[in-house]
Amino acid sequence: MANPRAAMLVIGDEILSGRTRDSNMHHLAGELTARGIDLVEARTVPDVHATIRDSVRALSEAHDIVFTSGGIGPTHDDITADAVADAFGAAIDVREDARAILTAHYDARGTELNEARLRMARIPDGAALIENPVSAAPGFILRNVHVMAGVPAIFQAMLASVLPGLTGGAPLMSQSLRIYRGEGDIAGPLRKMATDHPDLSFGSYPFQKDGVHGAQVVVRGTDAGQIADAMTWLSDTFGGDAE
Amino acid sequence: MANPRAAMLVIGDEILSGRTRDSNMHHLAGELTARGIDLVEARTVPDVHATIRDSVRALSEAHDIVFTSGGIGPTHDDITADAVADAFGAAIDVREDARAILTAHYDARGTELNEARLRMARIPDGAALIENPVSAAPGFILRNVHVMAGVPAIFQAMLASVLPGLTGGAPLMSQSLRIYRGEGDIAGPLRKMATDHPDLSFGSYPFQKDGVHGAQVVVRGTDAGQIADAMTWLSDTFGGDAE
Repeated sequence: MANPRAAMLVIGDEILSGRTRDSNMHHLAGELTARGIDLVEARTVPDVHATIRDSVRALSEAHDIVFTSGGIGPTHDDITADAVADAFGAAIDVREDARAILTAHYDARGTELNEARLRMARIPDGAALIENPVSAAPGFILRNVHVMAGVPAIFQAMLASVLPGLTGGAPLMSQSLRIYRGEGDIAGPLRKMATDHPDLSFGSYPFQKDGVHGAQVVVRGTDAGQIADAMTWLSDTFGGDAE
Repeated sequence: MANPRAAMLVIGDEILSGRTRDSNMHHLAGELTARGIDLVEARTVPDVHATIRDSVRALSEAHDIVFTSGGIGPTHDDITADAVADAFGAAIDVREDARAILTAHYDARGTELNEARLRMARIPDGAALIENPVSAAPGFILRNVHVMAGVPAIFQAMLASVLPGLTGGAPLMSQSLRIYRGEGDIAGPLRKMATDHPDLSFGSYPFQKDGVHGAQVVVRGTDAGQIADAMTWLSDTFGGDAE
């Protein structure tokens, strides 16, 4: 049975302007791969209602699981929750369970739960909350879409609470070998290996370091024995250093 | 007149698996913003012909300019050129101008221009070459799509040669202010500022450092005077440190 297929929607004007470099997608990718869930697409979009709505709808229909990051804070440009609700025709308003969480959090700090902060309690009808152990304001899950914060520490904490509930496939394992030959020299044999071993994938990534150039070959698969055999053949054929 | 709208397609299994963290999109975003070109969407896809083909076609139709990174090396998983040709119904084969460049490069190094390396001379009919001053193998431009390398140093060099030929709009400028108040405290007034100044955009990004929390407010626009006035109002109202 094939692994579940996931997509990520990174939301934020500041990423598309180049001001901020996203780290959530890379983090998500590693966590999913380790659990046998294949991240098959990622999109980065601006804080625009229609764009978020349409992207969420498209990704939700095309893939098994969707994760979004960004746009669930208290300011006017935090519009993700409403856009996700719109994507599925769900009603959205301040919800009592989320309000209670925020009330407890801000009361304990003597901070006013003002109109702006209350926006973070806007949760679509039918959504389940995702706990935010860092700063209280919850994420949520609606249909197959997990809506989470953009701040990396909060995204990672929310993801950690969500992952145990997901059913993964066979974890994808990989091993790699640093080969001190040009990519062009190894490409022919590597292509043959890929054709002969359809259950493995072979990636080749050129490197250059201190005047030495070569290719890092990465063997990926779900069967440790197959991977080990492939690695043995590669190092017998090309030499190089296992990593 | 509105700024030109650009999209990026990041191609690579190794990015979606989490093995490699992409840096090209962030680099492109900064370079485009500085030239008044708006990056409005970015997608990350695997080394799969149909996916690359369909994504290139969709982005090319939806936006003014498209940039792709990855998949133009010599190995079997480098399939971008063929997929891009397919997206536009263009023929593709080893082209003599690209072959000559590679021949000169490899002859000078006493390296064989073997079948694998020759794949890097596959250029679609009608495409213009993009010079690669780092490792010779050229990128190309077909219709409004700029196909470039995934290796960051090569991507950056190729982009640098392409940018002068692009017509940008008014460069987007930004200034930012670190305000030592919670996002929820400033959100109301910030929303009003955004509504009153439709030619500016106001983003708010929470931070926490050494126990101090606050929000970094970024004001973006094309009119330096408007930005300066907004910054003055913000610091008069909230205090904080300009950056």
